[in-house]
Amino acid sequence: MSRPLRVAVVGATGAAGSTVLRVLQEREFPAAELLVMASSRSAGSVIHHGGHDLEVLEATPDRVRGLDVVFLAAGAATARQLAPVIAAAGGIAVDKSSAYRMDPAVPLVVPEVNAHTVEAHHGILANPNCVATPLTVVLAPLHRACGLHRLTVATYQSASGAGRRLAEELRAQARADAAGAPPEHHAYPHRLHGNVVPGGWAMDGDDTEEERKVIAETRRVLELPNLPISVTTVRVPVEIGHSMAVWAEFDSAVQPNDARRVLEDAPGVLVLDDPARQVYPTPLQAAGRDEVLVGRIRADLGRPGALSLFVSCDNLRKGAAVNAVQVAELALRVRAGEASAAGSR
Amino acid sequence: MSRPLRVAVVGATGAAGSTVLRVLQEREFPAAELLVMASSRSAGSVIHHGGHDLEVLEATPDRVRGLDVVFLAAGAATARQLAPVIAAAGGIAVDKSSAYRMDPAVPLVVPEVNAHTVEAHHGILANPNCVATPLTVVLAPLHRACGLHRLTVATYQSASGAGRRLAEELRAQARADAAGAPPEHHAYPHRLHGNVVPGGWAMDGDDTEEERKVIAETRRVLELPNLPISVTTVRVPVEIGHSMAVWAEFDSAVQPNDARRVLEDAPGVLVLDDPARQVYPTPLQAAGRDEVLVGRIRADLGRPGALSLFVSCDNLRKGAAVNAVQVAELALRVRAGEASAAGSR
Repeated sequence: MSRPLRVAVVGATGAAGSTVLRVLQEREFPAAELLVMASSRSAGSVIHHGGHDLEVLEATPDRVRGLDVVFLAAGAATARQLAPVIAAAGGIAVDKSSAYRMDPAVPLVVPEVNAHTVEAHHGILANPNCVATPLTVVLAPLHRACGLHRLTVATYQSASGAGRRLAEELRAQARADAAGAPPEHHAYPHRLHGNVVPGGWAMDGDDTEEERKVIAETRRVLELPNLPISVTTVRVPVEIGHSMAVWAEFDSAVQPNDARRVLEDAPGVLVLDDPARQVYPTPLQAAGRDEVLVGRIRADLGRPGALSLFVSCDNLRKGAAVNAVQVAELALRVRAGEASAAGSR
Repeated sequence: MSRPLRVAVVGATGAAGSTVLRVLQEREFPAAELLVMASSRSAGSVIHHGGHDLEVLEATPDRVRGLDVVFLAAGAATARQLAPVIAAAGGIAVDKSSAYRMDPAVPLVVPEVNAHTVEAHHGILANPNCVATPLTVVLAPLHRACGLHRLTVATYQSASGAGRRLAEELRAQARADAAGAPPEHHAYPHRLHGNVVPGGWAMDGDDTEEERKVIAETRRVLELPNLPISVTTVRVPVEIGHSMAVWAEFDSAVQPNDARRVLEDAPGVLVLDDPARQVYPTPLQAAGRDEVLVGRIRADLGRPGALSLFVSCDNLRKGAAVNAVQVAELALRVRAGEASAAGSR
């Protein structure tokens, strides 16, 4: 990583993109030049970053062509337009959208889990959905130890996962409610403040597209294409931080204490597990951290030998920006011909 | 039910007890006299009810002895002190606490599910926990049709389930946050506003006591003493209304459309299930209603033949007060020698 790089963040005005900017600075990503881009709607606005004012440019194929690393934190349509241009010119496109996640030619990468897949990249690398990423970070070490056999997941997903607009609407609803006014909703099909909403995603038959993504992407990252997964996705009135109640069944019976030890040694995982002292993951504790928090590690009373877990993760950081920057770092190391990336963080 | 009755509500100043008072009035419960009682701390305060001012009396054995029906919406210790006195004097004690739920001599009743158990009562009747009640209302008709085999449940439980103090603290936290002040917490081990808390209950080993109650009471009400149940209980920032993501496995494969038809005909159930039009249960819609709402009825993608469901229920009404008043109505009909209560609502 000797040569300073020309870097861009597309979608820099959004919740995920602005977190990418912050993470690039925190991790001292070797950017000689940093461009911030967005749709024509946001072009011309100014982002304050690292002591500088950066003008937001409209993201166009001409602007991204020839850049070394481009983080795509916009929608799938933007990714499909720009990623091939970046890759064809020899750059690296790290995409946060769903556009390339199931493309067999594009690695879907969680560095703690399947870093080796980066070695085969052709300039485009995909990041999983912000539920699949923390799930696989926690489950991969348990799978290596005991063979994952079946997975059941109920999610508690924060407003920011749907974008900045819903996070702001949630705050506005809380303010209205505190002032005695009726909370209005426009960014989501139901009021979120003081509520729990098992929907709001596009549907794929009887399932939410989010549920289908969690299933397909978790299988792909864990390299378990037939893993049975039951998942229900639910939005909760939390600003940042996705949580999950997880039941995991294994080929061999797992003792909770053994699982705890495995997770305590696992990269990217922080075990918070002393419920008698009220120590367990919560999204408020996860927000702002890079680790995936896991706790309530215990025997699944309904399935002998299986485990029950509770997971919280900052959906904007490890669920999106941190993972994307880690993936870029890995891809650059692979390009630079460094030794196998599989052991790196 | 010809003779007008002397009735008392113990714990009348709490969240559950005050809802019992409201439900008694709504259902025109035949009370000739209505006494409101609470601990010595609340004695002397006044409750406005049905156009009258009722003075809160201290709940003592002498005061409840000889009453016809007493609703116990206080803790387990109060129930253990008062229920035997009420029953010994020929009255009916309907208890909301956990004191008698697993006592084989005391029926644990959800009228839509196991009304027949009331016939064997000896003056004390127990109500299940506010998660077990809606669960069994939804699962009993499916069990009758297909044979329930295994159950997995993640809960989204509201603040009022922990009592009025937490519900008020949640509102205070929202107001503080809206005003830019740090939200304080005293009634719960973690801040609840803007958070999700997989704890706060007393522990029983690695499980919350709440989880153990859901398992034991669901089994007892469904009369399936060995039903495997996996459950994780979680508190969410909602004032009223408990929700549950449920996966149910049956002896025979179940089609979602068949399950939907069974639930549409089931007593006490309201099916809200058109997710493409954003129709599904939420606690905001459940609050104030007596039905258990169920939706997101679909095939469990991880287990062929199994079902996935989402359930919301007003934890103060059907989860507590409505069920208790229904149980009292049933017990009075049994006393009056009416025909089998099993078919009644």
